[in-house]
Amino acid sequence: MTNFYQFRSADRIFTGVRALKTIKDNIHQLPGDIKNVLIIAQPSMLKFGYVDTLQEALSSAGVTSTVRSDVTPEPTIHYVEEAVEEINQDQYDAMIGIGGGSVLDVTKFFAVCHTNEQSVRDMMGIEQIQKPGVPMVLIPSTSGTGSEVTPNSILTLPAEELKVGVVSQYFLPQQVYLDASLTLELPKSITAATGMDAFTHSLESYISNKANPLSDMFAMESMKLISDNILEAYHNGKNETARENMLLGSMLGGMALSAAGTAAVHAMAYLIGGSFGVTHGVANSMLLPHVMEFNYDSVEERLETIAQETSLSKSGNASDVLESIRSLTAELEIPQDLSAYGVKEEDVPDLAVAASNVKRLMDNNPKQMSVEEIEMIYRRLLL
Amino acid sequence: MTNFYQFRSADRIFTGVRALKTIKDNIHQLPGDIKNVLIIAQPSMLKFGYVDTLQEALSSAGVTSTVRSDVTPEPTIHYVEEAVEEINQDQYDAMIGIGGGSVLDVTKFFAVCHTNEQSVRDMMGIEQIQKPGVPMVLIPSTSGTGSEVTPNSILTLPAEELKVGVVSQYFLPQQVYLDASLTLELPKSITAATGMDAFTHSLESYISNKANPLSDMFAMESMKLISDNILEAYHNGKNETARENMLLGSMLGGMALSAAGTAAVHAMAYLIGGSFGVTHGVANSMLLPHVMEFNYDSVEERLETIAQETSLSKSGNASDVLESIRSLTAELEIPQDLSAYGVKEEDVPDLAVAASNVKRLMDNNPKQMSVEEIEMIYRRLLL
Repeated sequence: MTNFYQFRSADRIFTGVRALKTIKDNIHQLPGDIKNVLIIAQPSMLKFGYVDTLQEALSSAGVTSTVRSDVTPEPTIHYVEEAVEEINQDQYDAMIGIGGGSVLDVTKFFAVCHTNEQSVRDMMGIEQIQKPGVPMVLIPSTSGTGSEVTPNSILTLPAEELKVGVVSQYFLPQQVYLDASLTLELPKSITAATGMDAFTHSLESYISNKANPLSDMFAMESMKLISDNILEAYHNGKNETARENMLLGSMLGGMALSAAGTAAVHAMAYLIGGSFGVTHGVANSMLLPHVMEFNYDSVEERLETIAQETSLSKSGNASDVLESIRSLTAELEIPQDLSAYGVKEEDVPDLAVAASNVKRLMDNNPKQMSVEEIEMIYRRLLL
Repeated sequence: MTNFYQFRSADRIFTGVRALKTIKDNIHQLPGDIKNVLIIAQPSMLKFGYVDTLQEALSSAGVTSTVRSDVTPEPTIHYVEEAVEEINQDQYDAMIGIGGGSVLDVTKFFAVCHTNEQSVRDMMGIEQIQKPGVPMVLIPSTSGTGSEVTPNSILTLPAEELKVGVVSQYFLPQQVYLDASLTLELPKSITAATGMDAFTHSLESYISNKANPLSDMFAMESMKLISDNILEAYHNGKNETARENMLLGSMLGGMALSAAGTAAVHAMAYLIGGSFGVTHGVANSMLLPHVMEFNYDSVEERLETIAQETSLSKSGNASDVLESIRSLTAELEIPQDLSAYGVKEEDVPDLAVAASNVKRLMDNNPKQMSVEEIEMIYRRLLL
């Protein structure tokens, strides 16, 4: 627990099923004169008609829009550099990201690159971006990253075989729309991996060395919402209430991680994401039970509080939480075999050294992890 | 409960005992080039040396500052108009408010009046202010209003014998410091009234017709913190932990009311504030038990949840919450007699009509209140 903490979030959050349409009433509350915007969309958002809904709402507010939908999962720095070059040939008054974590993360870069002269590479790191971007609206289509309320964006650097978390106050959007209707069509596997990803954000924030009363509040509420709703959202994806609760839970997970940071699960996930293309949600979800088992003796008291306040335990025992995570992982059919992604026994030592070097996150872990211990955890995922 | 809601807060919140000093590391993260700021200070903050601490921290960051400490409690529109005229003869890059709710509320006006051409009177109402002010830092010295995280500012209009809540997105500050050391010297009566004021914010938000999952989370955590700590802060004011929890609880109360609005207690309090100078905290605190008694049958289920999740009830019964509020009011020696402020029986009908016209707040109340019912509640406070 820490006494000094800070909390930043999106300026305004609009929520509710079909909240997307209300953008017509709010878009002109963005700073500046908004006439022409760039929409960065997940292909599924085009397919299911949500981009049409968005463009119609904008149009009725007198705003023209252009759509870009070429963001691939786990975007690379090269993709961002090339896209920025194209985008900056036109002039946009705002950027709207509608999609999963990757779409929201690149929208953050597009917005700041529209006003800053810096190269994308010069923006890597913590608070390296010089000035605010154009106004930004983020609309998540998965209940996972919580990116809509964090000052973070994750890019893959293929040459370094690494994912990098970039942090900037200018990555926080002016408006967020949490509209659960966008998540009703999510396939089961994505509901599972993104949901457990969100749970990981909250659990890691809750046990983080930087946990604090504010992050604890967000994390606990998020864990309650996700543990109460993830199985229903998985088995019965059209349940609007379950989807709404998941979306709120994932946003609160983003608020928790903004305030307290994540830890070893994320550090280890970045590596298998960067080198082997395991998507972020899957990587976090598969690592979570194993890292928590390792952490167990250092976090038993915190797990006991979780046991008492959430439905992850009936008896209020810390060990039930670990057991519930294991059984959720099984019921949600989270992949458990890194070999399927091409990871081999001989890759483990390098992965472990690299993960141990993600110091920003490893330093938050409540129990110190040696390179050998990281190796051991990766090996448990080689079936 | 409502499905459509929005949440806005301060951009960044720095907390912890002695967090005030860290302003030297953060001041230059405000937008623009910050060289010269205006400090609006509660006289007690000068007396106890906190303004010196603040000025030294700013000076070590190369920032010069001027101090103004003439804000009176429950400031009037005329005070703001006159002060703005003086302030605008100089040029400030930012405004820092350090004090109670009145100081923070006028700082909000000073900041927007430093850039807008509008008159103060033209700013009255909801979102009437045309553009952002200079950057603002708010540092509360009481655990009460939560003004540091709300888009609201309350002014008294003496001619109309009314207090008016002005709402603007530009009233949200860029930075907040929650430093409980500033509250250690608070007199008992102020600890009591401001603490119960904060509790009122949370309870009214929790039972508001605009309550929503996000506001509920803030409100419940706030009620827990305040009910667990208010007596300790009152009887043993130097207890840093109790003071920290009260400060956090009051900020969360501000977040709750931003997201859900307050209701009848506040509507009725504005009136006795405007006409008879009852300070905001006292007015809310004295009205709270009576309005809740009136509301009881409409909010029993919500009170039961409060009974189960806070220390306001041992048995988990809704009626205990009402009883605990009554006994807190007694132990904290909250004034209970409006006559002491010059209110007479013959004033009651006009007060009641005027309170019923504060529709923005009355509409949030879970049980409709007739003018006769409002009269009856005011009369209970005429001992």
